Amino acid sequence: MAAQQPNDARIAVIGLGSMGFGMAASLARAGFDVVGADVQKTAVERFATEHGRAAGSPAEAAQNADIVVTVVVNAAQTRDVLFGPNGAATTARKGAVIISSATMSPRDAVDLSERAASLGLLYLDAPISGGAHRAAEGALTILASGEAAAFAKARPALDAMAAKLYELGDKPGTGASFKMINQLLAGVHIAAACEAITFARRLDLDIAKVYEVITGSAGNSWMFENRVPHVLAGDYTPRSAVDIFTKDLGIISDMSRDQKFPTPIAAQAFQMFLMTAAAGMGRDDDASVARLYAKIAGLDLPGQP
Amino acid sequence: MAAQQPNDARIAVIGLGSMGFGMAASLARAGFDVVGADVQKTAVERFATEHGRAAGSPAEAAQNADIVVTVVVNAAQTRDVLFGPNGAATTARKGAVIISSATMSPRDAVDLSERAASLGLLYLDAPISGGAHRAAEGALTILASGEAAAFAKARPALDAMAAKLYELGDKPGTGASFKMINQLLAGVHIAAACEAITFARRLDLDIAKVYEVITGSAGNSWMFENRVPHVLAGDYTPRSAVDIFTKDLGIISDMSRDQKFPTPIAAQAFQMFLMTAAAGMGRDDDASVARLYAKIAGLDLPGQP
Repeated sequence: MAAQQPNDARIAVIGLGSMGFGMAASLARAGFDVVGADVQKTAVERFATEHGRAAGSPAEAAQNADIVVTVVVNAAQTRDVLFGPNGAATTARKGAVIISSATMSPRDAVDLSERAASLGLLYLDAPISGGAHRAAEGALTILASGEAAAFAKARPALDAMAAKLYELGDKPGTGASFKMINQLLAGVHIAAACEAITFARRLDLDIAKVYEVITGSAGNSWMFENRVPHVLAGDYTPRSAVDIFTKDLGIISDMSRDQKFPTPIAAQAFQMFLMTAAAGMGRDDDASVARLYAKIAGLDLPGQP
Repeated sequence: MAAQQPNDARIAVIGLGSMGFGMAASLARAGFDVVGADVQKTAVERFATEHGRAAGSPAEAAQNADIVVTVVVNAAQTRDVLFGPNGAATTARKGAVIISSATMSPRDAVDLSERAASLGLLYLDAPISGGAHRAAEGALTILASGEAAAFAKARPALDAMAAKLYELGDKPGTGASFKMINQLLAGVHIAAACEAITFARRLDLDIAKVYEVITGSAGNSWMFENRVPHVLAGDYTPRSAVDIFTKDLGIISDMSRDQKFPTPIAAQAFQMFLMTAAAGMGRDDDASVARLYAKIAGLDLPGQP
């Protein structure tokens, strides 16, 4: 989206993977002065050439920044790029706002928020949803919570990155909780889709026809509709890897124990992702859970030996 | 739908519950001569008054029938109304076609088909999907398999009952298999929806907001979108009862064992439905699985003590 008026804030984007790169590009397009950092030098150079400026570390990127967007894999990496030796918190402006995008437990979000506050920084617990394509278009869904001052400072940047911004209250941890409920369902639905489509194969059904029937029936899910085509095409190039859901269903498992709340369906799905990772497919597309069922049962699937 | 030309076939509809009544009414509207039978006398009388003619038994309803539609709960009831002492097969015309709508295992569908063939009757394995409202409108989805002669004879009746007719080949059992794959997914998605929305409650989230966020996110499913409103409204009037899925996931469990194919996600969902039935909610709406989680964890849900 083009900016209606110049955005003169300085923004550091830490993490230029497929999501972070698109988010940084969307911010630059909206007129912000954007500096990117990543452990991958090629991503940083490409960003500098195409959209903004490059930095060699989070601390360098955040020099005089008003806004720091972290788009790394998990809570540990977020902690490191913010509060580690070369962390962004060492150089960002006093009163700057951190927009934390990684999927993590609500407890980790609260911890990071408190640590930011102790350094005079604002913090938004702001996990994202939508994939690389929508990140590049500035059309993500953002599930954000945090104090009003943090929203006030971050909103122009959030608007540049999101098509849909949910403002979920003033408590850090709420954004993370909403994201984790989504991940619980998404993980279960992927595992169920893989179980169902391979069971259909075992029953000698035409699985392309099964896809057609189910996507028009009450058994459909967003994940069934999105992932089963990978199985039909025999293409396990990772759009989202098995390891993402071993991580996220692992967080659900931790939260479940902390809360003393049973999540038996998610726990079973977690085991299927762990089996798929154990079988050597952790970095492949998460539809590989279907290959795990096929491997166990000696079934052939499209494109598989 | 109004008939384009008079349909002079005689049709017996056995089972006038919420689905069968609507299907029989749709057939009558299309100009067929329809006779209804049911163990519930009031349903039969209401059907005779509003749409067609009444019979006191399946055998009486099927007297000289060209088509027999069975819309009962399971394979055992279908066997009984067709081949029992007062069964429809004793009186239907030679060469009549049976349209069997109950959800059952593929093995049961094959058995019934063979028994029909031995009596000179055609058989369509034709499970249905879509609920009472669409049954009444002649707008069901029908997943049918069977020999070409059975389709040829049944098609005008199928067209009167269905908005979407899938013709899934000439083998009885294929229609049942497609339906069971749908039920596997549907059952898992209901249990996952109930697990997720009660876990959200435990995390002190606004569950109406969770519904809004999830239905616009990758964690959505047809069942989440359809059933969670029952939880939000605290209304467990049965649109589809817990006992339906204890039955259908029980069939999946039997098929899984027969096929030596593991279905761990469905097995876990099955246990949650059994727990809900064990807790006395078998005849309540299947969203009652959420009440089971709430009962276990001492949570309050809308409208619940």
